[in-house]
Amino acid sequence: MDYFSEGISQLIEQLQVLPGIGAKSAQRLAFHIISMPEEKVDRLSDTLKSVRKNIRYCSECFTLTDSEKCPICSSAKRNHRMIMVVETSRDLAAYEKTGKYEGVYHVLNGAISPMLGIGPGDIRLKELMRRLEGDVEEVIIATNSTLEGETTAMYISRLVKPTGIRVTRIANGVPVGGDLENIDEVTLLRALEGRTVL
Amino acid sequence: MDYFSEGISQLIEQLQVLPGIGAKSAQRLAFHIISMPEEKVDRLSDTLKSVRKNIRYCSECFTLTDSEKCPICSSAKRNHRMIMVVETSRDLAAYEKTGKYEGVYHVLNGAISPMLGIGPGDIRLKELMRRLEGDVEEVIIATNSTLEGETTAMYISRLVKPTGIRVTRIANGVPVGGDLENIDEVTLLRALEGRTVL
Repeated sequence: MDYFSEGISQLIEQLQVLPGIGAKSAQRLAFHIISMPEEKVDRLSDTLKSVRKNIRYCSECFTLTDSEKCPICSSAKRNHRMIMVVETSRDLAAYEKTGKYEGVYHVLNGAISPMLGIGPGDIRLKELMRRLEGDVEEVIIATNSTLEGETTAMYISRLVKPTGIRVTRIANGVPVGGDLENIDEVTLLRALEGRTVL
Repeated sequence: MDYFSEGISQLIEQLQVLPGIGAKSAQRLAFHIISMPEEKVDRLSDTLKSVRKNIRYCSECFTLTDSEKCPICSSAKRNHRMIMVVETSRDLAAYEKTGKYEGVYHVLNGAISPMLGIGPGDIRLKELMRRLEGDVEEVIIATNSTLEGETTAMYISRLVKPTGIRVTRIANGVPVGGDLENIDEVTLLRALEGRTVL
């Protein structure tokens, strides 16, 4: 890219590394950033640096946050006796967007995957079991519906059951608004198995 | 986004302002950035700030650059007697990618648009005319093939003709690899008018 000046080329190169940003979008982004008011760029630059610097895991649920405890674990409005186990902070965010879940979370930061050599000791399972020593009524397993997610769900349910705490798994089924003809057979069968009386 | 900590929410908000980055990509980007090595994030942060701070127009062709003269205007390998007039630095980049153009550029940083109230005085036309007082053989007008681009092209050709310098316009036609049935009538007619003998 020697037709751009050194600085612009560097910016484009560094933006290109980000997920979902190809050569063209990186160029578009770079030129947009160049034309932004300088104080906005400075603010973005400072935010990037400080968020990365201060990032850590919540001491309770292990979601990514920048304080010792995340906003959800710190909230008195949440039901701390109901724990939803998710793989990542993004999964947590997905459930939070529904606005209907009132419990707290436990973020495993991964899933058991023999293929990738990720065992039970590599995700936050010990920490989950430690939380269950407290006053907990239900553990809702919301790991992904993938091989790794299902393996992890099975593993957790086997760990938790002996404690007597209720363990549940989120349902499989047809997505709302989903067209039956475009849905795979396994999902269709799960939806049938999980049918409810009207 | 009160389910994310303050810092993460701010980062997502600020990323969302960028072109082509919606709520979901901003979240994905933010989490990616958080998981990047800290020194890489620091480097990106510093590049953002310094590029924005040092950005200026090349004193000769008015492309965006971070030195007094851009790499192309500084190059002795380029033919400085052939000037291609483009609307933006991104258009310049598009032609540079062909790797075949050996002349230099003049970046108008806009196009005449009565609709948007952009007149000839608002783009770098005076500066172009000043360059033509030097030793110039040809002015290639490569403004966009839009109403504004065409208006600007007409205006420039009328300005330049009296100087006796050759003025040309890049061709309209069927894009290479383009399927005739998907191309609009105006382009098809232009392609017909511009036909060449084989």
